[in-house]
Amino acid sequence: MYHHVKKLMYTVNVGEPDVKFGNMLLEQFGGANGELAAAMQYSIQGFNCEDAERKDLLLDIGTEELSHLEIVGALIRMHLKPMKTDREAAEADPLVSIAGGGGVALFNSVGDPWTADYLKITGDLAVDLRSNIAAEARAKIVYERLINFTQDVGTKEALQFLMTREITHMRAFTAALESMEKPAFSIGTIAPTPGLVDEFFNDSTGTDDELGNENAGEIVKYAGLHLVESELFKGEGLNVKPYKPVPGSEETSPIDSQPVGPRPVSKVTREKKRAS
Amino acid sequence: MYHHVKKLMYTVNVGEPDVKFGNMLLEQFGGANGELAAAMQYSIQGFNCEDAERKDLLLDIGTEELSHLEIVGALIRMHLKPMKTDREAAEADPLVSIAGGGGVALFNSVGDPWTADYLKITGDLAVDLRSNIAAEARAKIVYERLINFTQDVGTKEALQFLMTREITHMRAFTAALESMEKPAFSIGTIAPTPGLVDEFFNDSTGTDDELGNENAGEIVKYAGLHLVESELFKGEGLNVKPYKPVPGSEETSPIDSQPVGPRPVSKVTREKKRAS
Amino acid sequence: MYHHVKKLMYTVNVGEPDVKFGNMLLEQFGGANGELAAAMQYSIQGFNCEDAERKDLLLDIGTEELSHLEIVGALIRMHLKPMKTDREAAEADPLVSIAGGGGVALFNSVGDPWTADYLKITGDLAVDLRSNIAAEARAKIVYERLINFTQDVGTKEALQFLMTREITHMRAFTAALESMEKPAFSIGTIAPTPGLVDEFFNDSTGTDDELGNENAGEIVKYAGLHLVESELFKGEGLNVKPYKPVPGSEETSPIDSQPVGPRPVSKVTREKKRAS
Amino acid sequence: MYHHVKKLMYTVNVGEPDVKFGNMLLEQFGGANGELAAAMQYSIQGFNCEDAERKDLLLDIGTEELSHLEIVGALIRMHLKPMKTDREAAEADPLVSIAGGGGVALFNSVGDPWTADYLKITGDLAVDLRSNIAAEARAKIVYERLINFTQDVGTKEALQFLMTREITHMRAFTAALESMEKPAFSIGTIAPTPGLVDEFFNDSTGTDDELGNENAGEIVKYAGLHLVESELFKGEGLNVKPYKPVPGSEETSPIDSQPVGPRPVSKVTREKKRAS
Amino acid sequence: MYHHVKKLMYTVNVGEPDVKFGNMLLEQFGGANGELAAAMQYSIQGFNCEDAERKDLLLDIGTEELSHLEIVGALIRMHLKPMKTDREAAEADPLVSIAGGGGVALFNSVGDPWTADYLKITGDLAVDLRSNIAAEARAKIVYERLINFTQDVGTKEALQFLMTREITHMRAFTAALESMEKPAFSIGTIAPTPGLVDEFFNDSTGTDDELGNENAGEIVKYAGLHLVESELFKGEGLNVKPYKPVPGSEETSPIDSQPVGPRPVSKVTREKKRAS
Amino acid sequence: MYHHVKKLMYTVNVGEPDVKFGNMLLEQFGGANGELAAAMQYSIQGFNCEDAERKDLLLDIGTEELSHLEIVGALIRMHLKPMKTDREAAEADPLVSIAGGGGVALFNSVGDPWTADYLKITGDLAVDLRSNIAAEARAKIVYERLINFTQDVGTKEALQFLMTREITHMRAFTAALESMEKPAFSIGTIAPTPGLVDEFFNDSTGTDDELGNENAGEIVKYAGLHLVESELFKGEGLNVKPYKPVPGSEETSPIDSQPVGPRPVSKVTREKKRAS
Repeated sequence: MYHHVKKLMYTVNVGEPDVKFGNMLLEQFGGANGELAAAMQYSIQGFNCEDAERKDLLLDIGTEELSHLEIVGALIRMHLKPMKTDREAAEADPLVSIAGGGGVALFNSVGDPWTADYLKITGDLAVDLRSNIAAEARAKIVYERLINFTQDVGTKEALQFLMTREITHMRAFTAALESMEKPAFSIGTIAPTPGLVDEFFNDSTGTDDELGNENAGEIVKYAGLHLVESELFKGEGLNVKPYKPVPGSEETSPIDSQPVGPRPVSKVTREKKRAS
Repeated sequence: MYHHVKKLMYTVNVGEPDVKFGNMLLEQFGGANGELAAAMQYSIQGFNCEDAERKDLLLDIGTEELSHLEIVGALIRMHLKPMKTDREAAEADPLVSIAGGGGVALFNSVGDPWTADYLKITGDLAVDLRSNIAAEARAKIVYERLINFTQDVGTKEALQFLMTREITHMRAFTAALESMEKPAFSIGTIAPTPGLVDEFFNDSTGTDDELGNENAGEIVKYAGLHLVESELFKGEGLNVKPYKPVPGSEETSPIDSQPVGPRPVSKVTREKKRAS
Repeated sequence: MYHHVKKLMYTVNVGEPDVKFGNMLLEQFGGANGELAAAMQYSIQGFNCEDAERKDLLLDIGTEELSHLEIVGALIRMHLKPMKTDREAAEADPLVSIAGGGGVALFNSVGDPWTADYLKITGDLAVDLRSNIAAEARAKIVYERLINFTQDVGTKEALQFLMTREITHMRAFTAALESMEKPAFSIGTIAPTPGLVDEFFNDSTGTDDELGNENAGEIVKYAGLHLVESELFKGEGLNVKPYKPVPGSEETSPIDSQPVGPRPVSKVTREKKRAS
Repeated sequence: MYHHVKKLMYTVNVGEPDVKFGNMLLEQFGGANGELAAAMQYSIQGFNCEDAERKDLLLDIGTEELSHLEIVGALIRMHLKPMKTDREAAEADPLVSIAGGGGVALFNSVGDPWTADYLKITGDLAVDLRSNIAAEARAKIVYERLINFTQDVGTKEALQFLMTREITHMRAFTAALESMEKPAFSIGTIAPTPGLVDEFFNDSTGTDDELGNENAGEIVKYAGLHLVESELFKGEGLNVKPYKPVPGSEETSPIDSQPVGPRPVSKVTREKKRAS
Repeated sequence: MYHHVKKLMYTVNVGEPDVKFGNMLLEQFGGANGELAAAMQYSIQGFNCEDAERKDLLLDIGTEELSHLEIVGALIRMHLKPMKTDREAAEADPLVSIAGGGGVALFNSVGDPWTADYLKITGDLAVDLRSNIAAEARAKIVYERLINFTQDVGTKEALQFLMTREITHMRAFTAALESMEKPAFSIGTIAPTPGLVDEFFNDSTGTDDELGNENAGEIVKYAGLHLVESELFKGEGLNVKPYKPVPGSEETSPIDSQPVGPRPVSKVTREKKRAS
Repeated sequence: MYHHVKKLMYTVNVGEPDVKFGNMLLEQFGGANGELAAAMQYSIQGFNCEDAERKDLLLDIGTEELSHLEIVGALIRMHLKPMKTDREAAEADPLVSIAGGGGVALFNSVGDPWTADYLKITGDLAVDLRSNIAAEARAKIVYERLINFTQDVGTKEALQFLMTREITHMRAFTAALESMEKPAFSIGTIAPTPGLVDEFFNDSTGTDDELGNENAGEIVKYAGLHLVESELFKGEGLNVKPYKPVPGSEETSPIDSQPVGPRPVSKVTREKKRAS
């Protein structure tokens, strides 16, 4: 159940309205990495979550993002105000001025309607938390760019407030993931094929200046992988020997989501596999 | 420049076609977390990347995902074949059978057209790598679910191959991020507001059984944050004292993307910060 | 600022899960006339609203719709549960089962992603209230159809609760519109062309049984309009004599939105016009 | 069956082309509340309608909107003409100039493709007519804004013509609804829960200046509703006692659509219920 | 100006309603290659067309497609009727039954909303006619598939009528293109680079059985092109010597659209080029 | 299987960056007729194709289009570079600058996300080749318009290279179609209704100057069709006598796709029909 408090979480002050900047700000209202996207992604993950602690966390943060949506909306409205009466200002975003009467609506800076395709909701908690960490990183960089493109002090400060909260949330989601105690690359309950999982396929050729003559080799080593060359150049190619999936072979934790699909093999089988 | 090799990266074998499963497989062809999404996200990030090593990595993986798209396409076609002549089979996906003649096209399992809104491309390398790690985790869990919903051995094995590669790529992207040596929560070049960044806002009330009487407190502590209660219940609320953004205050690395916006404060200021 | 209460506004009970019905219910979660659409339409109109009473009303109702979203989500999750482990159940909505792990997400019953194109937000209060009245009527009829297609008592009762609230809101929006005291067909501040506004254009011919030999004449009269026949059949056609728009000529009220565009002619001109 | 007359319903004259205004006009060609949206909404409702009078009305108005689409198209083309040869003009809408050769196509002012998601078609006549009344109100206000943003007399007059017709249609749809003689808030055939339907939930707190210290109370009273306070603040909350839906309990009329779902209880049962 | 005749262009008869087939038929109502797509593509090209003969042709055919839309709509409604009262029938398309009340709306067979992205309108007459020829071919094959998947005689005959008209229109568009007397591969007014235009790039390797050991060589010869091998295998690669575009160098005809962009070089230059 | 070569197929040089032109160029990167659309349309048709020669052709050209995508991406990045630091430049495309960090992504010139709805893939080879011919014509005219709107020599030359390739591919697709030896208007395997197929329906009236007093008559004759007047004006109307579809009656060729649907009547029946 939701409740609304008739007060913005952060009071916004704008000096001189800047319609083109107001238009840019729409990225954080109705854009792909904006506040509604964050609010919906976390809240709906929260609706689906069966772990009480993480459910609470997801809904708390999801709700705070709704409050952010309201702040960004207030900020944008102040910047867009001239669109109501001034034809030249109106040209900065004809959709806002002609169809929307100069107010905010769920569009991004180029008028694309907000879509649920922006969201990443898989119903697997450990996966969703990774999507949230990435989402917070994206929201942070977008706020930073907006800060860099305005000179208005009040606007800068409001954006700094919102930007800071993304880092807070990124830390909370990271803690939520790490405290699940699933190993770093353990997703779901079926382990990847041994051997094959360590092969990095070198899927390119050439040392042209323009594209760089260095290559991914150092990172590949850092990742504990080894390079495999393409059959196209007489390389051995990836190991394509068929391998049957082993349900229950992947490391999991009590908090982990149940895998989708028929129940995996019995716990005994799984324990045995682990023991081996 | 791209080149095509007239051979699948993994040879697919299907026993009995299963049109409804073929339809489910479309999630990994034209779906939000499918192979085209992966191919495009990494390849286009690669086009934009100015660090030679990571550019190579992004393009290598992006290209391998194109090869995966071809494998998934072959697998789906085998499962969808009965749609060409059998009315009942055709009902499993009328878009595929009536509009597409029983072949594959860029739609997901419910016929939504593939859209670039699925992609997360911000042009900030450290952010994009996080989006890729999350993307690989999502792709992995989707393959696992598909494995769990088919009994066909050849199909299971092909999906195991593809699923394994996602974990390989997840490791490679993680290495690419960690080797940038940016601190864990350092995004871009403007640091979050001190103090405020450590506050977790408790944006909910109640201990109803249904929604769980435990709360996010433990995770909040784990994250090094402290709880702040809402003004709604006489809490202190978040620290909303205005704070001016400080360009160049965030930890960065030589590989880090240049921030978008006018050049931040001089290197000296930034070095000093680092020295302190 | 928003706050979340860890309790559903209405406690849902489901007897036997019915995955196909759970799928139908998605219309009210992520569908065109569903709860998120209602929540967003009213809340964002509320953000834009400059009349304190109606702003409060819009935000109160918008917030209640968020609570409804949570109820519908809980109801759907109960019905979709078998999708997690049962292949046949999973076929009822492959997007939900394969991509979403059997949980809810912002899609409708056929998997279309929720889009802001569902919303009607013009920034003109009297217009937006009409859009809301129509939106509530649509939501009501959709709930009614859902009620008619399930036999589960707990589900029926939950839907009855939600359906009832739509009528309450419809009454509230109607009162909000009528209390503005703008005449019935007075929109904005420019009056329609006299004479022309009373002409109903008879844009069809024929008395075929199939399409009905009765016509719209009675309704036209009821509306105070008169029929004009097409030039195609030697009718006089509509009155196309050019007529210059007269800003400020339309009836308005103190609560009415300011018209978008340069300020209309002075009140005096307007009063004079009215007097004439 | 449709027929085309090689003559615009209203002859358009444009003085000086104004590409940025031409771009704004696209809202009424391929926009959410534009002429195609109107034409399709009414015509397709007409296809579905089983009441001969209202079917005729819907198709007559739907067909006139097609004629309006043609007028708006002609007007836009005159304004966009400079895009064909002038680079600076082309910048006003690169989609129109580069992809469309300077002609019209089904996009709005920011290049969003027209989508059927703009339409509101429920197949319930009394509901659809409400959607149409709201649609006409929206179209009217959009025309008014366009009139306010151009100085070209010929353009103003053409828009005045089109704007006037929306009011005519709004009156016709209102008459079509009222002449059905269904009570004001009677939708479909299942009545809302008595008691609960009269409760307005006060879902907000606070008297912040910025958001207004007045509240919706007066309107709530005007609507015949009474305020219910939230449990969050020791209020009684909404009446959530389960109530079974009663098919056939709502007021209807001979013209009313049949409810979707299995036939409601017999007329006798219904009469008895009414008598009680 | 449009006019509606209250009679279907073709009277439809349906024996036994078949809801799943009715759902398939939606491809031709609100689908990518359906009747609305055809109507809009041709009509809007007609609005833009400045050649009187082809404008008339485009509008005549566009208008006939509107009449087809009405026929397909009538056919679908007959097949979908059981959705109104029968739960099992309703499952065949929950969007149609729950949101649409069992009537038609602008969605395809899997519920995707019709979008203007289906249309191909470039504003270049010779190009648009090619798009129309292809569009008619697509519509034809879709009708054929529908015919093959129904046993109902009345439905088959109605679809045969509609399918036949596509071939008629395909012939008309072909004649409209050929009578422009532009050479076969002459598009616009800038000629392609001589030499390079004759090179077919062999962008693949391998003779795997699965993908076929034959290659495109015969067709390449048939097309008057010659094969160029990739640099990747020591081939010469495509001729990438820079070549400056020569405006006005391409063959044109009096009916041809003016090129978009600044006027090309004088007619004299062009005549000289032709003479040479 | 795909392979990447670390070298652009055509080396791009840009003099002065021109952000507004860079924005226009996005039409050929993420636009409806751009390089990704081409790459995907042909490659996926290639995946589906069962004729070895045409499969090879489709995949070769599809792969070359991927290389073009890379070239266009490089060109755009050079033109968009100022967006990274300059606020005024950033206004040319706020989506690119704020959300995308000044890099390329899969959007068109007005920020619409790339969608598979741009593609035309029917699974019928002879139909798909027609769609490809039209697609190449569209791509050509778009490149021409871009050439006409830039003065930068390096850009012009790069676009001339890309434009030329479209004509090469158009020739290849035409040869692929013609060498199938299916008659010009023979699509699929069911012939259109004799007689009816030769009727052109004159679906318009009037000789208004504005819309042209010439008509489509000459083209109709050129097409071997005859004019049929509407019943609306006492014309005979189209021949609507029911006609049963005859599977297998249409001319086909060994390379032709199998028709979708149950196998058509035996070859004997078909031969007999042909003989008659």
